[in-house]
Amino acid sequence: MTPEATRSFLRSMFDAAVAAAMPEQCVPQNLPPKPKGRTIVVGTGKASAAMAQVFEKAWDARVEGLIVTRYGHAVPCEHIEIVEAAHPVPDDAGTKGARRMLSMVRGLSPDDLVVALISGGGSALLSLPAESISAEEKRAVNRALLKSGAPISEMNCVRKHLSAIKGGRLAAAAYPARVVSLVISDVPGDDLAAVGSGPTVADPTTFAQARAIIAKYKIDAPSSVIRHLESAIDETPKPGDYRLASVETKLIASPQKSLEAAAAIARAQSITPIILGDSIEGEAREVGFVMAGIALQARRFGQPLPAPCVLISGGETTVTVRGSGAGGRNVEFLLALALKLDGAEKITALAADTDGVDGAREVAGAFIMADTLSRARAMGIDPWASLSNNDGHGFFERLCDQIITGPTLTNVNDFRAVFIA
Amino acid sequence: MTPEATRSFLRSMFDAAVAAAMPEQCVPQNLPPKPKGRTIVVGTGKASAAMAQVFEKAWDARVEGLIVTRYGHAVPCEHIEIVEAAHPVPDDAGTKGARRMLSMVRGLSPDDLVVALISGGGSALLSLPAESISAEEKRAVNRALLKSGAPISEMNCVRKHLSAIKGGRLAAAAYPARVVSLVISDVPGDDLAAVGSGPTVADPTTFAQARAIIAKYKIDAPSSVIRHLESAIDETPKPGDYRLASVETKLIASPQKSLEAAAAIARAQSITPIILGDSIEGEAREVGFVMAGIALQARRFGQPLPAPCVLISGGETTVTVRGSGAGGRNVEFLLALALKLDGAEKITALAADTDGVDGAREVAGAFIMADTLSRARAMGIDPWASLSNNDGHGFFERLCDQIITGPTLTNVNDFRAVFIA
Repeated sequence: MTPEATRSFLRSMFDAAVAAAMPEQCVPQNLPPKPKGRTIVVGTGKASAAMAQVFEKAWDARVEGLIVTRYGHAVPCEHIEIVEAAHPVPDDAGTKGARRMLSMVRGLSPDDLVVALISGGGSALLSLPAESISAEEKRAVNRALLKSGAPISEMNCVRKHLSAIKGGRLAAAAYPARVVSLVISDVPGDDLAAVGSGPTVADPTTFAQARAIIAKYKIDAPSSVIRHLESAIDETPKPGDYRLASVETKLIASPQKSLEAAAAIARAQSITPIILGDSIEGEAREVGFVMAGIALQARRFGQPLPAPCVLISGGETTVTVRGSGAGGRNVEFLLALALKLDGAEKITALAADTDGVDGAREVAGAFIMADTLSRARAMGIDPWASLSNNDGHGFFERLCDQIITGPTLTNVNDFRAVFIA
Repeated sequence: MTPEATRSFLRSMFDAAVAAAMPEQCVPQNLPPKPKGRTIVVGTGKASAAMAQVFEKAWDARVEGLIVTRYGHAVPCEHIEIVEAAHPVPDDAGTKGARRMLSMVRGLSPDDLVVALISGGGSALLSLPAESISAEEKRAVNRALLKSGAPISEMNCVRKHLSAIKGGRLAAAAYPARVVSLVISDVPGDDLAAVGSGPTVADPTTFAQARAIIAKYKIDAPSSVIRHLESAIDETPKPGDYRLASVETKLIASPQKSLEAAAAIARAQSITPIILGDSIEGEAREVGFVMAGIALQARRFGQPLPAPCVLISGGETTVTVRGSGAGGRNVEFLLALALKLDGAEKITALAADTDGVDGAREVAGAFIMADTLSRARAMGIDPWASLSNNDGHGFFERLCDQIITGPTLTNVNDFRAVFIA
C-alpha cells in the first residue's frame, strides 16, 4: 500500500466509526412505532440536540418536546425546544430545563409516547436537586465526591439520591405513558444506568448505600443533604418497578458499535481487524507503549494474528500533564507509540477523538507513519521532548499529520487503529 | 474450572515458560558437533554457570573453560572454572575473568571449538576496558550514560567501543577456531548483538558513532576515553569480517520461545492462547489497566478471540516507586489489573518473573482470582492503598497468593497470563 492509500485506509476506518455514532445514521434506524396519542421528545447530553433534529425530520407526525444540551451544542429544531446549559459544572439553565422537562412528561396517558434522547454529559446538564436541597448544596457534595477518589459508580449512587430526575425518576414521572429511550453511550461497558445518570433506567442502589458512601469517603455534606439521605423518602425506582414496565431503552450508538463499523471497513479490504477493547484506559503514553509491543509482535511473529491486520481500540485514556505544550489524549498516545515503534517498517496508526476535539485544540487527532520520527528530526524537532512537554498537537501540526474534522456533535470516545501491513 | 484447577492451569503455563528457558532443557538440544581438537567453553551472564554445568554433563568428551557469572549464581562444574563477579556495577573479578577468557581463546587452531554460553547480565559481568582506559574511567562513562536518557542501543555502541571483549571481539580473538555461541536472550527483539553486549556477534556500529553519542548527550568523558574514541584503533569486527566467518550464534531460549511453550499448554487444554507480545513495556500498573480492558473485551464481545482464551505476554515493565511497600513489576501489574477488573467473573491471572525474583523479594510473582479484591477488603486491606504504596508483595503475601520458586538461575523476563474462562 502506498503511504496515501494507507492514510486513506486509516481515515476511512475513523470516518466509519464516527458515522456509526452520528444521529443521522443511528436515530432513523431506531424509531419507535407511532403512538395513538401525543409524542413528547425529551433528552439531554452533548449529542441530544443533534439527535432531536434528526428525530423530528424522520418522525413523520406531530412532535413536541424539550432538550437540554451543552452550550455551543444546540442545532435548530422546528418543534422541539433546545435549551443550552453548563457542563461539567451544572448551572441554573440546566436546573430550570430539568424542572420543565419533568412537568412536560407528567399527566400523560398510556396512549402517549415519550422519546428520551440521551447522550454523554447528560448527568451534569440535567441537574435538579431533590426538593429539600439547594443547587449549591448539591454542587458542594459533587465537588467533594470528585476529590474523594470514589469510583464513578459510587459517585453516581449518591448523585441519583440527591436528584429529582436521575436514576429512572424521569421515566417514573412519565408513567403511564410509554417511554422509548435512545442512548448514545460513551461510558465503559455501556452501563445504561450510567449514561446521563440514567433518567429512564431503574436504579438498584439505595439511600442506605448513598449514606454509606458519604461516610466511607468522609464527605463533609451539608445538613440538608444528610437529612434528605436519612429521610429516605422518594427512593429511586428499582428494577421491576411498575412505573418502568413500559420503558424500552435502546443503545443506538456506542464505542463498540463504532469499532465494529471500522472493523467492517478493514475486513472489506482483506485486512484482519483485531478489536482489543472498547474501553481501554490508562495513561495515554503507556497505552502507546503497550500497543507498540503488540504491533511489533504482529509484525515479527504474526501474533496475536498475522499481518495484514489492524489493532482497533476505543475508550478514554488519561494524560498526566507535566509540560506546557498543546496536547490531547490521542496525540500523546501517538507520540509514545511512534517512539516505541522507533520507525518500524509497515506500521502506521491513527488516533482521534470521535467528538472531533482531542484535548487542548479543535483537532480530532493525527496519523503516524513509519517515517514520522525521521521527518520530525529532519525538521529539528525532538520527539521525546515533544512528548515530555505534552505537545502532541504542536508536533503533528508541524508534520502536517493532523486530523481535523471540527466538532462532530456526537461522542463515543477515542478511536485508535494501528495498522500492520 | 474450579479455582484450584484454574490456579493449576495458570501455574502450569508459567512452569512451562520457565522450563523452556532452563539450561537443562535448552542446552542439550543445541550441542554442536564434536571438534577434532580441543573444546573450550567460555561465557558470561546470570544463567551461564548453570548452562556450563549442563553442557559439561551432556558433552561426552574433554572440555575446559571459564565462565564469569554473578555473585550467588555459581553452580559446581567439574572441568569448567566458574568465576563470580559484580552486577550491575562491574568489579575487578569480572575484569580479571574477561582478561583470562580472552587469553584462553587465543592461539587456537581451526580444529578447535569455542563454545560461548551467553545470557543476560553478561554486559556488566564481563567488563574489560580497552588498553588505554582504566576500569574507573570506563565506569564513569557508563554511569553518565545511564543518567543521560540515551536508548540502550546507543549506550551499547559506546560500551562496545570502550571494551576489549564486547562487540564481537571475543570471537575475533578466537579466530581461526570455530565458535558456537548459545544464547539465552532477555532483550526485547532478541537482538543477539545486545545480549551480554554480543561478545561473539559482529558490531555494525563505529567509533565515529560512539563519539557522536558522547557529544549528543554531552557526556563529560575523561580525556583517556576521548583520546581512545578519536584514535579509532582496533574497530569492532563488522558483519562480513573474516574472523567471524566460522561463528554460529544460536538463540536457544528467549521470551518468545517461553511464551510459545506456555501457549502449547493452553492449546492442549482447548484454551485459545493469544500471544500479545514478548516485549510489552510500560509502567506496570498502566500495563495492568490495558490488559484489563482487553480481558473484559474478550469476556463481553469474544474479541480479539472468543473465550476460553488466555492473554499471554512477556517483556519487562517498569515501576515508578512512590511508596514504601515491598513491590515488584509483576505484583504491581497484578494489583492494577485486579482493580480495573473490579471482580469481573471468570477472569484470573498470573504474573511472575521467570528468574524467580520479582523486585524487592525472593518471590516470583502472584495470582489474582475473581475474589481477590473482596477477600482483601474482608481482611481490612485497601487494594488501592496497597497499589499507591507499591506494596504488591505485602498484599499478595497476606492473601496467600504468592508464587515462590526461588531463583531459577535463568531469565527470559516477565511472564503474564490473563485467563478468560
